[in-house]
Amino acid sequence: MVKILILGAGVMGTALSVPLIDNGHIVNLVGTHLDGDIIAKLQAGYPHPRLGIRVGESVTAYSYDQLSQAIQGVDLVVIGVNSHGIEWAALALSPVLSADIPILVVTKGLAGDGEKLSILPEVIRANLPNTISSRIQIVAIGGPSIAQELAARRHTCVMFTSTNQTLLSHLAELARTPYYHIWTNTDIIGIEVCVAMKNVYALAVGLVIGFLEKAGKAVNDAEMHNLAAAIFAQGMWETAYLVNKMGGKPESVYSLPGSGDLYVTCQGGRNSRMGRLLGLGISYSQAKAEYMPNDTVEGASLALAIGQTVENMIEKGDLDAIALPLLRTMIDIVCHDAPAIIPWDRFFATK
Amino acid sequence: MVKILILGAGVMGTALSVPLIDNGHIVNLVGTHLDGDIIAKLQAGYPHPRLGIRVGESVTAYSYDQLSQAIQGVDLVVIGVNSHGIEWAALALSPVLSADIPILVVTKGLAGDGEKLSILPEVIRANLPNTISSRIQIVAIGGPSIAQELAARRHTCVMFTSTNQTLLSHLAELARTPYYHIWTNTDIIGIEVCVAMKNVYALAVGLVIGFLEKAGKAVNDAEMHNLAAAIFAQGMWETAYLVNKMGGKPESVYSLPGSGDLYVTCQGGRNSRMGRLLGLGISYSQAKAEYMPNDTVEGASLALAIGQTVENMIEKGDLDAIALPLLRTMIDIVCHDAPAIIPWDRFFATK
Repeated sequence: MVKILILGAGVMGTALSVPLIDNGHIVNLVGTHLDGDIIAKLQAGYPHPRLGIRVGESVTAYSYDQLSQAIQGVDLVVIGVNSHGIEWAALALSPVLSADIPILVVTKGLAGDGEKLSILPEVIRANLPNTISSRIQIVAIGGPSIAQELAARRHTCVMFTSTNQTLLSHLAELARTPYYHIWTNTDIIGIEVCVAMKNVYALAVGLVIGFLEKAGKAVNDAEMHNLAAAIFAQGMWETAYLVNKMGGKPESVYSLPGSGDLYVTCQGGRNSRMGRLLGLGISYSQAKAEYMPNDTVEGASLALAIGQTVENMIEKGDLDAIALPLLRTMIDIVCHDAPAIIPWDRFFATK
Repeated sequence: MVKILILGAGVMGTALSVPLIDNGHIVNLVGTHLDGDIIAKLQAGYPHPRLGIRVGESVTAYSYDQLSQAIQGVDLVVIGVNSHGIEWAALALSPVLSADIPILVVTKGLAGDGEKLSILPEVIRANLPNTISSRIQIVAIGGPSIAQELAARRHTCVMFTSTNQTLLSHLAELARTPYYHIWTNTDIIGIEVCVAMKNVYALAVGLVIGFLEKAGKAVNDAEMHNLAAAIFAQGMWETAYLVNKMGGKPESVYSLPGSGDLYVTCQGGRNSRMGRLLGLGISYSQAKAEYMPNDTVEGASLALAIGQTVENMIEKGDLDAIALPLLRTMIDIVCHDAPAIIPWDRFFATK
């Protein structure tokens, strides 16, 4: 039995408490400044409003101003915020974290600084004090994992990744249950690139819902699965390019982090809802402001986070424009309000 | 303008006539001995009963006993039968085919002879007379292509493959339209393995529909997309192993033939219907006999076609058992009426 702090009481952070307490651990769940209502509900014994379950008895909910109290004596810190909160999480932890406590990150995303792309474990490290960042161990989780399903103890398969295999095995053992299946893999770059990129490509697959709605039914009731599948495949293709370019391994693309996570993200959720609006012909700015003002659409967040950097890297020759037509299209749509037009003739380009 | 014979008047063979006649070609569509009703309907001017469209004016429908007449003067033969009909098609064509006429195969599958696996173009070649087989050019089509959608002129992206790039480019030009997007690729082994294996892995993903129905809804309405996605990813993983083992390229796995075709096949259809029945706990024999006696379930057909051979190859050490736990499970289910139990602990094995 160990004591674990989870920072971020959204759906994924909270869902992770389920396998952890099933394994007999004690969890302190700390909400961010955006999770006030959730923490109040959990403290009052109500179900998590978005997850639809009550947390276990071994889970204690804290508000973020109680972080220094909640972190006392913990053996592991889980970061479960969304991609917008990753720097905040690192800064919030900085004054209270010991370098001996490993961090497990559920958050998926990439960051761009105008010149290069970074995986989130690097972003966390960069935002911690030197005394901590030089020593701290950071492990990430990748793989298809809808939080509501994990919370309902549905079978869920993920990969824990870092460069430290001993730590990976230890953390996997802490969290593994008969329904939470965990593999370990040291390809942290490949896995992190896959699980981040899946959001923007799921947004692209989601466009088809809008295209179909706009085009109407065919005379023989045919839908547009061929189109969605081609976009899915181009997403995989571009992910493989980026993984290779950043130093990851192709195996991550055709296993849980790549194909599995993209598949699950295409089954609905906010990327799909936004994709539909864009496919209907609504500009991103308008769709966001009018229909989803309070939703984090991770695919759009990623495009905004890395768009300018990707454009700069292409300009400088660090990335190849012909390898990324779909990403460039999605960046144009999200960052520049371009219309949703699929660049077929540039798909699957090889030199 | 060229003249084209399509052998097989099922949904896919007939759907291919649409881009071909849109490009101004003339098509002779020849039904198999199972297509009698379809051909009668088409000859009488009715829509194709399963495709839901009328064929174009440049399409002439023939019954199979008119094959020798229909093949007169054609420049290309398209084989559009299902996997069960591939040897029949080769034998039917043998007396009337000229070695100068290239063959374009839409049929997806693999064959096992007890010792090794073969791609369908090889099966066709092996069933043609030596005078023809030594010279004939065979091109295959892979990629996500629901026939009804192609027939409705929905965007469809495919790869034409053979080892002859000049012929590939020529045929792609004949068939390419603004909605039928064609790439060419010489990795015929990789592409053919991908598009065959997707059927058995889509059957596996389909199991989850039955699992969910049997388990019922979770308290928070959670479904089982994580589970489906993990099976999807394992399917990709095993496909990559087989492609590599048989001499294909990994790029085919993470582009249209692998990820695209598996994705589209998981969107419904007969593999999913059979998968649901198996997931509900019904044995394959019973499910086939009672619920789908007249349906070709390509995933099950593939398991039956290669099951014994895969088992023999594993026994002899030609294939690695630990690399193919999901395929072996599906073979057990289909060939040996085993219950549908997912072998989690054997997924994503690396040596």
